[in-house]
Amino acid sequence: MPLLGLLPRRAWAALLSQLLRPPCASCTGAVRCQSQGTRDLSPQHMVVREKILDLVISCFKRHGAKGMDTPAFELKETLTEKYGEDSGLMYDLKDQGGELLSLRYDLTVPFARYLAMNKVKKMKRYHVGKVWRRESPSIVQGRYREFCQCDFDIAGQFDPMIPDAECLKIICEILSGLQLGDFFIKVNDRRIVDGMFAACGVPESKFRAICSSIDKLDKMAWKDVRHEMVAKKGLAPEVADRIGDYVQCHGGVSLVEQMFQDPRLSQNKQALEGLEDLKLLFEYLTLFGIAEKISFDLSLARGLDYYTGVIYEAVLLQTPTQAGEEPLNVGSVAAGGRYDGLVGMFDPKGHKVPCVGLSIGVERIFYIVEQRMKTKGEKVRTTETQVFVATPQKNFLQERLKLITELWDAGIKAEMLYKNNPKLLTQLHYCESTGIPLVVIIGEQELKEGIIKIRSVASREEVAIKRENLVAEIQKRLSES
Amino acid sequence: MPLLGLLPRRAWAALLSQLLRPPCASCTGAVRCQSQGTRDLSPQHMVVREKILDLVISCFKRHGAKGMDTPAFELKETLTEKYGEDSGLMYDLKDQGGELLSLRYDLTVPFARYLAMNKVKKMKRYHVGKVWRRESPSIVQGRYREFCQCDFDIAGQFDPMIPDAECLKIICEILSGLQLGDFFIKVNDRRIVDGMFAACGVPESKFRAICSSIDKLDKMAWKDVRHEMVAKKGLAPEVADRIGDYVQCHGGVSLVEQMFQDPRLSQNKQALEGLEDLKLLFEYLTLFGIAEKISFDLSLARGLDYYTGVIYEAVLLQTPTQAGEEPLNVGSVAAGGRYDGLVGMFDPKGHKVPCVGLSIGVERIFYIVEQRMKTKGEKVRTTETQVFVATPQKNFLQERLKLITELWDAGIKAEMLYKNNPKLLTQLHYCESTGIPLVVIIGEQELKEGIIKIRSVASREEVAIKRENLVAEIQKRLSES
Repeated sequence: MPLLGLLPRRAWAALLSQLLRPPCASCTGAVRCQSQGTRDLSPQHMVVREKILDLVISCFKRHGAKGMDTPAFELKETLTEKYGEDSGLMYDLKDQGGELLSLRYDLTVPFARYLAMNKVKKMKRYHVGKVWRRESPSIVQGRYREFCQCDFDIAGQFDPMIPDAECLKIICEILSGLQLGDFFIKVNDRRIVDGMFAACGVPESKFRAICSSIDKLDKMAWKDVRHEMVAKKGLAPEVADRIGDYVQCHGGVSLVEQMFQDPRLSQNKQALEGLEDLKLLFEYLTLFGIAEKISFDLSLARGLDYYTGVIYEAVLLQTPTQAGEEPLNVGSVAAGGRYDGLVGMFDPKGHKVPCVGLSIGVERIFYIVEQRMKTKGEKVRTTETQVFVATPQKNFLQERLKLITELWDAGIKAEMLYKNNPKLLTQLHYCESTGIPLVVIIGEQELKEGIIKIRSVASREEVAIKRENLVAEIQKRLSES
Repeated sequence: MPLLGLLPRRAWAALLSQLLRPPCASCTGAVRCQSQGTRDLSPQHMVVREKILDLVISCFKRHGAKGMDTPAFELKETLTEKYGEDSGLMYDLKDQGGELLSLRYDLTVPFARYLAMNKVKKMKRYHVGKVWRRESPSIVQGRYREFCQCDFDIAGQFDPMIPDAECLKIICEILSGLQLGDFFIKVNDRRIVDGMFAACGVPESKFRAICSSIDKLDKMAWKDVRHEMVAKKGLAPEVADRIGDYVQCHGGVSLVEQMFQDPRLSQNKQALEGLEDLKLLFEYLTLFGIAEKISFDLSLARGLDYYTGVIYEAVLLQTPTQAGEEPLNVGSVAAGGRYDGLVGMFDPKGHKVPCVGLSIGVERIFYIVEQRMKTKGEKVRTTETQVFVATPQKNFLQERLKLITELWDAGIKAEMLYKNNPKLLTQLHYCESTGIPLVVIIGEQELKEGIIKIRSVASREEVAIKRENLVAEIQKRLSES
């Protein structure tokens, strides 16, 4: 991926300021900004997307995942009570005399529904598709209401932490492969989060609500999160302060060891299980060679209801960091975790299938790479055309059509102008502006002599070859370049 | 595409009978059949789809098309009054306090909206995406309510019939490439259809309604279509009978010549323009080498409102046809036409951008290819894993993790079992059942000697190589196979 590389410091600053503005302010050119909060993807966008998705999908395949797809909408009841406080953001379809349907909100719940419905007990799959959330663009910045997710999940009963470690390995491979600069992955465990809540004195009925508040710590300051917990969610101030002590803690495997000694946490069975698993996880991450990318972070809570074990979130750092400067948090670009109870919610007998997975935040990655290319002034070719069929003469449409048929039928990507009598200059200009490398030129003289001229657009060199060698000669040149 | 080839005669009969049954009756395995008329795509489906879409997209790119995408939903007003009688089949979103939105019904209207909104006057683009139609599965057989479309369109003011001919060339390339057996493309022109209606005495206010009836001729007998026109749409019986004479006509370019002489049609200015264009079209199709695939067919009307010129529909034939047998119509697998007025409907000043395009009916093609593979008993690999990491010994998880990391980091597609102590037989069985060609085996002896065993799953041969040569050796073997 030669397009992707490190972004200069100034570009990051510009990028960051744009990421923090609502999307409509940062849209340009062919991007539509309708009030419904979606947008069209222009050919320029599509080229960048295709490159990034190719890299992501090839990583998923490298780890043995199968492809899968589910419909854009699900029965509304399938999606309700899965997403915590975000449930209100679902797009419902109008009742037109059938079932109540909603557009899918993520790819995880449809996957769990698929496993349960087909009684699949074991599956490693990836899924790339659109999801829809009715978020207000002015509140959640830099996001659209329709966006693409790239998910990888491992379903099945296995020995602990091996699939979980692989998910983290995959995130590392993808973020390294995309050359987005330095990153790290925050890791925690829902059982540790809940254990922490219990240890701090949060009533169990408030666990998920407080979890949602904690999840906002990457966007809000602690004092605002604390205010929400106390004023809006009725938590006692001293309980909030106890939580405040914990959520400041982050570190490597040594922090895991330290938490085993924590007088409050170590009393909690759930938290202990979580800590045991994290310890084992770090062991595997070391063998995968990625332990130094991982940070055990007690402030990580993840908003969605369905997580039951390990949770994680990858964060990009501003890069390169100058001496004496704090690395700047550019935001989450991948996340996931373990959800052992979700499939059971769809099974009539409640049979569980443990799952762990990850989702790559490709929209943010698309945006970062697009901005970087803009900053560098990189031009993207939006077509792959290899050869242009031209003529300097009038009344040569028939010959051009015959010639281009020969190229197409040989699998060569070819274009011509849809005009009876185009000017040669117009034809050559089209090649230059769209980046087509070769031109084949036919005229009366060439026709009489049974030859064709091949012109290199870059060097402007022209050579004459025998007409019957045309396809072979072009294939040779294309394979050389 | 070695998977695709001719289908034996008996298989076609079985296939046809299934195509004519509602989809729920023909679903098997991992396919979901919910009453909302959608389905999940299993990994097996996805492999077939990927192959077919790759071929389709590479043809579109060969003809110089750019990629593009639009949101799944549009403002409802964008979609209304574009689809004729089918408009009632649109999925509306619930009014949740924003604009009124509907799921897109095809990819053509969003493309026209995109061109107008961005003032694009010229563009050759392809678009692969889902569309949604609330069709009753029991009425329209063999269809789902969510399905994939593959569209190619050329927008812009060009010399007549050159882009139109290229669209037909593309359909031929794709259908030939997919090896679906023999096919032909019906061609007509909306101006000839309208001219025929005028010549037969259809009141102009009934043109589109009668057009919709004619469009059903591939699914209904003439007498039923005639009944609909007379009894439901109030057409005079003698007018219907005059139409009946025309819609029986089909043939090659000679039929075009013949229609120029038709006493009624030749009086009609519109029809004459259409005939002139068809004549030119056939000239270009001959140069493209596809004229013998094209049939001028006066029964072709196309249901959608927006067509203004040439229209076409590709039909598969049963293959191979035995002597003395009628070729059997398997149904439309590609269609399209010219729509010069659609973009202008979205432009505030009504500025027109002439367009012509095509849509490949990939769902039906997916189904045909899947059935053919089933008939032939072809097995599909749903993963691309190249190497499996195995051990015959207990307590070797650490070594397996280190080994697989080496492979992943070298870009090799590798898997292992997520168990601390799997049995060797289980591991080898996994490779056989999933089609993984190579196994690398590590045990105590190997570790001590600094070697690794490589096993070919097919031949069961094992060779020992030096540990440090592992990646190079595997890459060599993979490039040879």
